[in-house]
Amino acid sequence: KRKAFEDTTGKTSSSNKEAFRAAMLNALERRLFFIPSFKIYGAVAGFYDYGPPGCAMKQNVTQTWRNHFILEENMLEVECPAVTPEIVLKASGHVERFTDFMVTDVKTGDCHRADHLLEAALEACIEDAKSTPEAVHAARDLLARVGELGAAKLGAALTQYGVKSPDTKNDISPPFPFNLMFKTSIGPRGDMVGYLRPETAQGIFVNFRDLLYYNGSKLPFAAAQIGNSYRNEISPRAGLLRVREFTQAEIEHFCNPQDKSHPKFKSVADVQPLLYSRALQMGNEKKPKRFPLGQAVSEGIIANETLAYFIGRTYLFAQRIGLNPDRVRFRQHLQHEMAHYAEDCWDFEVECSYGWVECAGLADRSAFDLNAHSSMSKVELAAYERFPEPREEDVLSILPNKKELGKLYKKDAKAIADALEAMSECDALEMQGKLAAGQSAALKVDGGVFEMQPGFVEIRQQRKKLSGRNFTPAVIEPSFGIGRILYCVFEHCFYTREGDDQRTVFRFTPLTAPVKCTVFPLLQRAELNERAEAMSAALTRERLSNTVDTTGTSIGKRYARTDEIGVPFAITVDYQSVEDSTATLRERDSTAQVRVPLAELPALVRRLTDMELSWDEVAAKYPAQAPASDE
Amino acid sequence: KRKAFEDTTGKTSSSNKEAFRAAMLNALERRLFFIPSFKIYGAVAGFYDYGPPGCAMKQNVTQTWRNHFILEENMLEVECPAVTPEIVLKASGHVERFTDFMVTDVKTGDCHRADHLLEAALEACIEDAKSTPEAVHAARDLLARVGELGAAKLGAALTQYGVKSPDTKNDISPPFPFNLMFKTSIGPRGDMVGYLRPETAQGIFVNFRDLLYYNGSKLPFAAAQIGNSYRNEISPRAGLLRVREFTQAEIEHFCNPQDKSHPKFKSVADVQPLLYSRALQMGNEKKPKRFPLGQAVSEGIIANETLAYFIGRTYLFAQRIGLNPDRVRFRQHLQHEMAHYAEDCWDFEVECSYGWVECAGLADRSAFDLNAHSSMSKVELAAYERFPEPREEDVLSILPNKKELGKLYKKDAKAIADALEAMSECDALEMQGKLAAGQSAALKVDGGVFEMQPGFVEIRQQRKKLSGRNFTPAVIEPSFGIGRILYCVFEHCFYTREGDDQRTVFRFTPLTAPVKCTVFPLLQRAELNERAEAMSAALTRERLSNTVDTTGTSIGKRYARTDEIGVPFAITVDYQSVEDSTATLRERDSTAQVRVPLAELPALVRRLTDMELSWDEVAAKYPAQAPASDE
Repeated sequence: KRKAFEDTTGKTSSSNKEAFRAAMLNALERRLFFIPSFKIYGAVAGFYDYGPPGCAMKQNVTQTWRNHFILEENMLEVECPAVTPEIVLKASGHVERFTDFMVTDVKTGDCHRADHLLEAALEACIEDAKSTPEAVHAARDLLARVGELGAAKLGAALTQYGVKSPDTKNDISPPFPFNLMFKTSIGPRGDMVGYLRPETAQGIFVNFRDLLYYNGSKLPFAAAQIGNSYRNEISPRAGLLRVREFTQAEIEHFCNPQDKSHPKFKSVADVQPLLYSRALQMGNEKKPKRFPLGQAVSEGIIANETLAYFIGRTYLFAQRIGLNPDRVRFRQHLQHEMAHYAEDCWDFEVECSYGWVECAGLADRSAFDLNAHSSMSKVELAAYERFPEPREEDVLSILPNKKELGKLYKKDAKAIADALEAMSECDALEMQGKLAAGQSAALKVDGGVFEMQPGFVEIRQQRKKLSGRNFTPAVIEPSFGIGRILYCVFEHCFYTREGDDQRTVFRFTPLTAPVKCTVFPLLQRAELNERAEAMSAALTRERLSNTVDTTGTSIGKRYARTDEIGVPFAITVDYQSVEDSTATLRERDSTAQVRVPLAELPALVRRLTDMELSWDEVAAKYPAQAPASDE
Repeated sequence: KRKAFEDTTGKTSSSNKEAFRAAMLNALERRLFFIPSFKIYGAVAGFYDYGPPGCAMKQNVTQTWRNHFILEENMLEVECPAVTPEIVLKASGHVERFTDFMVTDVKTGDCHRADHLLEAALEACIEDAKSTPEAVHAARDLLARVGELGAAKLGAALTQYGVKSPDTKNDISPPFPFNLMFKTSIGPRGDMVGYLRPETAQGIFVNFRDLLYYNGSKLPFAAAQIGNSYRNEISPRAGLLRVREFTQAEIEHFCNPQDKSHPKFKSVADVQPLLYSRALQMGNEKKPKRFPLGQAVSEGIIANETLAYFIGRTYLFAQRIGLNPDRVRFRQHLQHEMAHYAEDCWDFEVECSYGWVECAGLADRSAFDLNAHSSMSKVELAAYERFPEPREEDVLSILPNKKELGKLYKKDAKAIADALEAMSECDALEMQGKLAAGQSAALKVDGGVFEMQPGFVEIRQQRKKLSGRNFTPAVIEPSFGIGRILYCVFEHCFYTREGDDQRTVFRFTPLTAPVKCTVFPLLQRAELNERAEAMSAALTRERLSNTVDTTGTSIGKRYARTDEIGVPFAITVDYQSVEDSTATLRERDSTAQVRVPLAELPALVRRLTDMELSWDEVAAKYPAQAPASDE
């Protein structure tokens, strides 16, 4: 297992997963990639600050995402507030269902996630040499189903396995649902409940009508939002992977439910990511397999072109930001993992020291979200489709007898007629049946109930020529967690120099690297410092983030220091620079150096950073320079 | 007044401020620059979404800010959570003092800002023809001081002017302070109070120690943060200017309080923004005046170079994003407007239809913030300064008699010795006085009190050679409101074509424009559509946001439609394109067109957008093309 891990990661150190993670977190924290938030006040679990290099990388990853998805597809980007009134999240189901099961320590009141405690108990049972084969089998079986258990079954299992509060060994309460949304109050009166949004998607759904209009009333189109979301986790562990405030990048692709083809699908049809389909998960090998996406769609493994298109684009994005393509996969949700309305759902998972981590979800959510908001807000969220040629169809027509209603119900007549016309097809047919049988039929109108009699309303099927139809679009949602992706980039890029565990390096791609280039005067001399400062200013004019290191430390140590934060390029100004206006340019991973005229360097580093030029091309063009003696 | 407004803005329509604003807001809302949040649920005051063009512009302005300030100065950028535990905001003073005075309608409970109601009453009194000159004078005098009034005086004034609840004319309650922070609870126990941060600055202050270390323990350095802040305004009006969730971009420049020079000050010494100093505000003319910043510092108008440097950089930033330099000014705070600890403070104000609007504040806050967090967290937030050569200074030395204390107090001895050593200079001198007079002196130690006797501790002034000192850095804080700046950009860029009030245009700079270029096939023909799509793809490869408009509308109407959202350039593919592979390129404000080879267009538009090339240069190089007949 350890061997396999090292082979996959290409790590030169002999550390196992935990030691690897500890070494990497040490490098990240020491160089201020992240900081536990409010550290001088003892920190608060689940909150992290990004320090300078972490912040720069997060922006690079986010900007790459924006270019790769939004700009490339001309998506409609929006920005909505995090503070959200309750009604929006009632419609979406979050107020009722966005919960985890919690248990409390009956003496201390400490809170724990019920599923996590049960999982730990089951794992202990499986690993316990004294467990019978039957017990191991039962525990293994239950472990696979922990996520599906309701409160009662979860509680029974906790009792059965004798689960206690982890630190104190006190008894625990029965599990109960805890809503993960941060609650607040909007406005000074205190009577308007608000929540911090648990996802950015709802902001797009509530704007659907305006966005469709903005797009010339044409489908398909995609809208996107990058922003922070909030989940008040019960007891966040797993460091940077489970945090209470995090950045999401979400896309909602709206399309005709009868046509989920994608105009650009051809461009990814030959891309071959690792797919871990339902069939492969249920099979014996339990291993993902590479499939060309074209084949995956034609064989029905992925439900439709649009979903497959986004899987392909996600795979290309992963490579662009420096994830190892052998350590990313797309795992299809098993039937019981999906909501009832979902048509198909794939998680983008990245392998890291915590195992396979969900970094994005790509789901075909059908028309669920738009229907939910439409029914709560009473605003129609639909698109219109003109048929290629008019069709004859049977249409149910409801014609209230307004004269009769007016006579009988006076001021209520209008509301009754409106309610009749607004009946669903199903309700109308039921009423038609009763009235045809000479019975009366109850009609609910804004709280009141009125008895309809035959003659009050005419309900019948009519043959009509239709030139088009209104329908609720389906939505395909790729949803990314930027922080998790960034964390996995850290893990995939971290290594130590051959033979020296202390010399840590991040092999960030130039695009994502926090600083693109460092500039070193070889020695602390005025004429070298001046040239270094001038070079730094020239790099800044090219919008390349850079730093000058004028400390007198040896050049090898200074290179090592920039390797630690993954700076891909370093320019050293030496005495030859004063004579012939050249400087050395060093590449981080090969530690190779070339000598380049000062005047050419800024544009050269710019092109290397934009990944328009490879290091090999540079090495072929400029004379090599022997590395520093202490490299 | 109307004339002056039109002269300054260069508007061709004859509209006054309100009509101008209404026309602009109509253009913004119609083209989805912004949307009232949660609109299908009736919207919530103080919250706005950015729609596609608004969102793109906000990012362009933010990215320009990041390049102009952070990249240029190599500032340390951080990102901290919005959810903040109470202790941080207790230290900063927000829990106690971040309030507005509120009054409620005694019958309906409606909430209003007390100062706004009083201001409206005073303005009505001033404008009322029946008011006596004395009454007008008194009202004018009070109006200038509304912001300084405490609860009692504010209440008295509301009573004196007979202020009622605006809509109902009911009586109002006496004013009371309402805290503007959104409150929430962190974690599942419900016992940890949290707030949504009212500003991003505190995240930087609490990280000061780590940031200083990251900077090699050297001063000065600046840290910056761009992120959302939250203020639960009592009754937000003024549309996009007073919102409850907004994006701030804040800089904290830490420096030695005895040296506020700035290494790059020379680069802005000749910049001449409009300065509205304290003296000019108190003078008779009450008009700002242009000053070279070098002169403003040497004459003591601006307190120091660093503050003046940021004023200069802010002025240059304003021009870069398209604000009219004649309609921006820097207004110095009057003495009573500043907190007691502030050394100097200037607001960056932009003139728009609401009057002069504060879009940024630039303040020398001395060591206040670091001292506040240091004293609350008990963590020293200080920098070390090595003297150029060692200095002899009198230092108070406190030497507890540990042997004696140990004998008497046993296990408490250590805590007592620590408390003695931690005494402030002032407390130590007081104790020294008492002990020297043979008296005992009380010492508080963690809740307990111990009586110190002569001989327990030796306190005396000692001449010491010091090679350096610890000190709390001063902070100079430029703090920007991105949303307000963006709103002012909208106002300064909006105009209507000469002679046609219906043809509205935004003259956004290419850098800030939401879409850089549109591509039109002149007619709906396959060979033109194909070339248009290819051009669009080529522009996308250059990272230029662009749209293709293939609707059959007349070309003049399509130009007008892109003018409405301020697209600076448009490429039209016509039949000549098919013959000689050229297309026309149109500039928005001049409506002039040139004919350019297709292959050259993407790079040309790229350079125009980066503002490396002006339209005049392009017009001089390529042959002119007669505009469309309906332009």
